[in-house]
Amino acid sequence: MTTIRGFQLTAPGQPLAPVRREVAALSADDVLVRVAGCGVCHTDLGFLHDGVRTRHSLPLILGHEISGHVEDAGSRHRALVGKAVVVPAVLPCGECALCRSGHATICAEQVMPGNDRDGGFATHAILPGRFLCPVPGAGPDADAPLGKAAGLRLRHLAVVADAVSTAYQAVERSGLREDELAVVVGLGGVGTFAAQIAAERGAAVVGLDVDARRREAAPKMGVGLALDPREISGKELRGRIAGFAREKGAPATGWTILECSGTPAGQQTAFGLLVHGATLMVVGFTLEAVSLRLSNLMAFDARAFGNWGCAPELYPAILDKVLAGRIDVVSHAELRPLSEIAEALEEVRSHRAQRRIVLVPDREETP
Amino acid sequence: MTTIRGFQLTAPGQPLAPVRREVAALSADDVLVRVAGCGVCHTDLGFLHDGVRTRHSLPLILGHEISGHVEDAGSRHRALVGKAVVVPAVLPCGECALCRSGHATICAEQVMPGNDRDGGFATHAILPGRFLCPVPGAGPDADAPLGKAAGLRLRHLAVVADAVSTAYQAVERSGLREDELAVVVGLGGVGTFAAQIAAERGAAVVGLDVDARRREAAPKMGVGLALDPREISGKELRGRIAGFAREKGAPATGWTILECSGTPAGQQTAFGLLVHGATLMVVGFTLEAVSLRLSNLMAFDARAFGNWGCAPELYPAILDKVLAGRIDVVSHAELRPLSEIAEALEEVRSHRAQRRIVLVPDREETP
Repeated sequence: MTTIRGFQLTAPGQPLAPVRREVAALSADDVLVRVAGCGVCHTDLGFLHDGVRTRHSLPLILGHEISGHVEDAGSRHRALVGKAVVVPAVLPCGECALCRSGHATICAEQVMPGNDRDGGFATHAILPGRFLCPVPGAGPDADAPLGKAAGLRLRHLAVVADAVSTAYQAVERSGLREDELAVVVGLGGVGTFAAQIAAERGAAVVGLDVDARRREAAPKMGVGLALDPREISGKELRGRIAGFAREKGAPATGWTILECSGTPAGQQTAFGLLVHGATLMVVGFTLEAVSLRLSNLMAFDARAFGNWGCAPELYPAILDKVLAGRIDVVSHAELRPLSEIAEALEEVRSHRAQRRIVLVPDREETP
Repeated sequence: MTTIRGFQLTAPGQPLAPVRREVAALSADDVLVRVAGCGVCHTDLGFLHDGVRTRHSLPLILGHEISGHVEDAGSRHRALVGKAVVVPAVLPCGECALCRSGHATICAEQVMPGNDRDGGFATHAILPGRFLCPVPGAGPDADAPLGKAAGLRLRHLAVVADAVSTAYQAVERSGLREDELAVVVGLGGVGTFAAQIAAERGAAVVGLDVDARRREAAPKMGVGLALDPREISGKELRGRIAGFAREKGAPATGWTILECSGTPAGQQTAFGLLVHGATLMVVGFTLEAVSLRLSNLMAFDARAFGNWGCAPELYPAILDKVLAGRIDVVSHAELRPLSEIAEALEEVRSHRAQRRIVLVPDREETP
């Protein structure tokens, strides 16, 4: 019998506590995943510090950005045993009216690890087998090289489960096309990938971030113009971006603005960049309200889309781009032992983390 | 030579002033429209009282909701002479890259009467001939019966130019389908038609308005549940609407919310009704900012579309529905002599007007 060793949230504001759970028999629909890596997301901090409530009652093991190997499976998913997989952060049921009509991301029966049930800040997780995305070319060793990208391991692919795929669906949904202008607000865990994905589509990309180190790293994300929205704002910011668009031959209308900071200031900056026909993607999350002239959507004939997770059917294409090295995850992820979870969470909370932190269970050190 | 007699805005906050202008030779692209009727819109009040600036410098004859007869035409539009027409409130150029790529409503060369040039609060208006929408079956008499709707005259069709067509494009753009739920916030000049158009598509329609008389009139607009959002708000409002949706067999997700009040309170009510997969149409306009949790778009995987005007290619279908009596404009429009424009504007401003006021030039009384 397998023992799951992980870290659970017992009450908001309290440090995550080590926990051990014995795995009973798996139901027909479930699989047991041995976690290779689990990314740390601001959503986890929302549960921990900001009063965002998990859908499952506490205590709960957090973590929804999981890659790993299927170690065991219920009767419906035996074919997955032994496979290396990325676990989509949102696993819809695939059967309800919403799923069947192309609205899988709002499926009421969806399972999000670390929210609807125990997640990936652990050695193992029991998850629905449906929609797990096998990693082409991956063997049983989580430390073996993968694909064409230097240094890429299965553990890095944890970030595909949410950060990369959320950014990907947001860009996809925005309809961004070659030679258009994309503005990414917040070059953090998700924005890093939004910028790369926009650039990979052939868009001219502007990146806005208050952190000088992120702005310095921005060219590697495909960002052609990186600015500090605290130093340059309002009309001046619009003017600088419009100048960049002209220089790159991108239109003055129809900008795609990807708000990835999940902060009120970032949302106001993003909303303030609406031009005629603009598309604002609300990718980051904050519980705080912001003051906006909503009518600008009308005056500019513009639109704003929220983006929750990523539809499972998009994962194979995303994974292909990552394995081919067209989306770089290695430079934007940092592996850390799971036993250092408290420090890792604090680094993300205090915005000291420069890269997406992926927690790697350590068989000796994990409680 | 024709003399245009109308009312112009000379300075914000000042009463509109009578003006006479002689019509010189028409350019090849222009036509002279003898105004049958011109609707009064909150946009006019925005220019008059709220500091919204017209794109053309003052003085300017306001009014952008025009029906009438083409009395004379430049060389490119001779075929229109004698025709009864509805003048789309937004006339794109039809030739630029935006127009050719299906984004006509954000065409930078667009002409809006009463904003980019003199409008329809006058006996005549000189307008671009492009995209005027001829009225099937209409003869030279503006007072002759039209179509199958009792009492319908060319003058009533003024409201098709903006109020009906803006509502129509908003519903069209929202993707609202049969048996879904639509919530119309504000049953005024535009909301009246939004409700009718949603009902005509087979949706279950909820109407919210603070005015008891409008709520009483709501069943005639196809509204199945009319509520006062000052009396019932927040969770209770959502609950009542969800109950109505269940009763009508409409889904609990994917609501279409049409914000037509153009008030901060209406926008907050509308935003507060977001459910999973909801579509918020921002149809009304206010210069005021509102405080919203923008991230709810993300959490609900929802979207918000602005809606500016209506693409000219939609007008023939709209006109067909109005002429067939499937969209009722007669009950929702009120004809008034143009000479009473000051009183009419004041009635609209003070929310005393129960119906869309259409100003009709009176050959004797107009200055």
